[in-house]
Amino acid sequence: MRKLLIIGIGSGNPEHMTIQAINALNRADALFIPTKGEKKTELAEVRREICARYVTRADSRTVEFAVPVRRTEGVSYDGSVDDWHARIAEIYERLIGSELGEDGTGAFLVWGDPMLYDSTIRIVERVKARGKIVFDYDVLPGITSLQALCASHRIPLNLVGKPVEITTGRRLAESFPARSQTSVVMLDGEQAFRRIEDPDAEIYWGAYLGTPDEIVISGRLADVKDKILATRAQARARMGWIMDIYLLRKGADFEE
Amino acid sequence: MRKLLIIGIGSGNPEHMTIQAINALNRADALFIPTKGEKKTELAEVRREICARYVTRADSRTVEFAVPVRRTEGVSYDGSVDDWHARIAEIYERLIGSELGEDGTGAFLVWGDPMLYDSTIRIVERVKARGKIVFDYDVLPGITSLQALCASHRIPLNLVGKPVEITTGRRLAESFPARSQTSVVMLDGEQAFRRIEDPDAEIYWGAYLGTPDEIVISGRLADVKDKILATRAQARARMGWIMDIYLLRKGADFEE
Ligand SMILES: C[S@@+](CC[C@H](N)C(=O)[O-])C[C@H]1O[C@@H](n2cnc3c(N)ncnc32)[C@H](O)[C@@H]1O
Ligand SMILES: C[S@@+](CC[C@H](N)C(=O)[O-])C[C@H]1O[C@@H](n2cnc3c(N)ncnc32)[C@H](O)[C@@H]1O
Repeated sequence: MRKLLIIGIGSGNPEHMTIQAINALNRADALFIPTKGEKKTELAEVRREICARYVTRADSRTVEFAVPVRRTEGVSYDGSVDDWHARIAEIYERLIGSELGEDGTGAFLVWGDPMLYDSTIRIVERVKARGKIVFDYDVLPGITSLQALCASHRIPLNLVGKPVEITTGRRLAESFPARSQTSVVMLDGEQAFRRIEDPDAEIYWGAYLGTPDEIVISGRLADVKDKILATRAQARARMGWIMDIYLLRKGADFEE
Repeated sequence: MRKLLIIGIGSGNPEHMTIQAINALNRADALFIPTKGEKKTELAEVRREICARYVTRADSRTVEFAVPVRRTEGVSYDGSVDDWHARIAEIYERLIGSELGEDGTGAFLVWGDPMLYDSTIRIVERVKARGKIVFDYDVLPGITSLQALCASHRIPLNLVGKPVEITTGRRLAESFPARSQTSVVMLDGEQAFRRIEDPDAEIYWGAYLGTPDEIVISGRLADVKDKILATRAQARARMGWIMDIYLLRKGADFEE
């Protein structure tokens, strides 16, 4: 039977790779590599370095594929993502069917961990559900950007015994500070933190984590908000793209 | 200056170790290993195997230390943890001062990732704040039990674009399903899922993840609740201890 490996490759530092992920890379006959808008050359570079450093089998093949652009006009957000996943599923189906032999193994290299704001697992499940190709698959965890953020700031994610919410920029206002004392924000295109007015909020922000371009800033939100906005805008202009994540916190470990 | 490395070692599978963590292990002159109640011999075994497989420098020293028991009588939860951390901080201070030379490097091996429901970072910060010993430290991420859970079940953590809450058994009732469509529960001594009555809730449960004893069960909560309770009780009786984690979910990816 054909086999797929969905491999988390960490969030920027090639040394985030686990031994399990390295072994999985070397079990694959073909490595499927997305070629997204080639602006983010530094990201493609991380993937290339991972393959160059850790792939040791001589007959490993790399198969690049173009990821379609998501259509957003005239559809709801859910409808747009649903349609996008359907189109990617067709590409995956074709890759699995044409690039792998009957007993072949293919690998998808996923940024961070495949479980966190990533749809590779969902799309592979779609391909399975279509039923045209029979295959099995495994998921291998990788270091997420959330972990890279906490490690660089040397902070625990949670307050002692307290919950944590992970959310997106679009939904931050519902979360922090009313619902959660610790909120982590990913996929924020609007810098939603700028609208949080709580005087006790603290922020731990990081961009390009794990890469040589890593930037981290932390402090009382009211004090460092403008600095983060300016730093982010400058970095984005210089690099042509940005990936950032942050943690907002209110309260202390021992406060009862 | 003295240096500490707080190294995440993954959640049960020695192959969760990252290249970064392996390199850090080998930068340390001394590896500080807690000897908790020696019932959990399988956990001590994972640590031992990690050291045996990945420590390559010949002069690496292992320093075991006993972790004090938390006093719980006549104090609040916060007070109890606070006092416990203070006592562990004294032990760390002694270890750093007596086991490391002026320019020595020591490593703490932390289960999973140091950011997630673990107090090593907090306690090291306490030692720093006491000011008796000057040192610097780094944190290295590791694969968490949450990631091991999602990988074994081959599920995304979040619904598309939706938030996720990570919480403890004690606080689950506040979280799921009223506040969150996806709640992950760790540190649950009371099997709080048994009190969730929502007919649409699904559960993904895992114990001893990453180890040869791994057990996973998933399904509609109402259907598998009793099976999980029975399986958990049996496994706990057989092994003498248990570590489990689960994800509760309600709703679907595309539902708007
Ligand atoms: C589509 S999600 C993928 C997350 C990934 N699966 C993970 O485990 O981190 C992309 C978001 O992750 C965050 N992110 C990923 N890598 C990052 C990095 N190196 N530095 C900062 N943020 C990062 C950003 O919030 C970005 O918008
Ligand atoms: C004190 S917390 C430490 C968490 C750890 N730092 C991590 O990153 O996963 C201990 C809790 O983690 C979860 N846990 C850790 N390892 C586990 C494993 N191998 N299988 C299942 N649950 C685990 C359980 O919920 C347990 O109560």
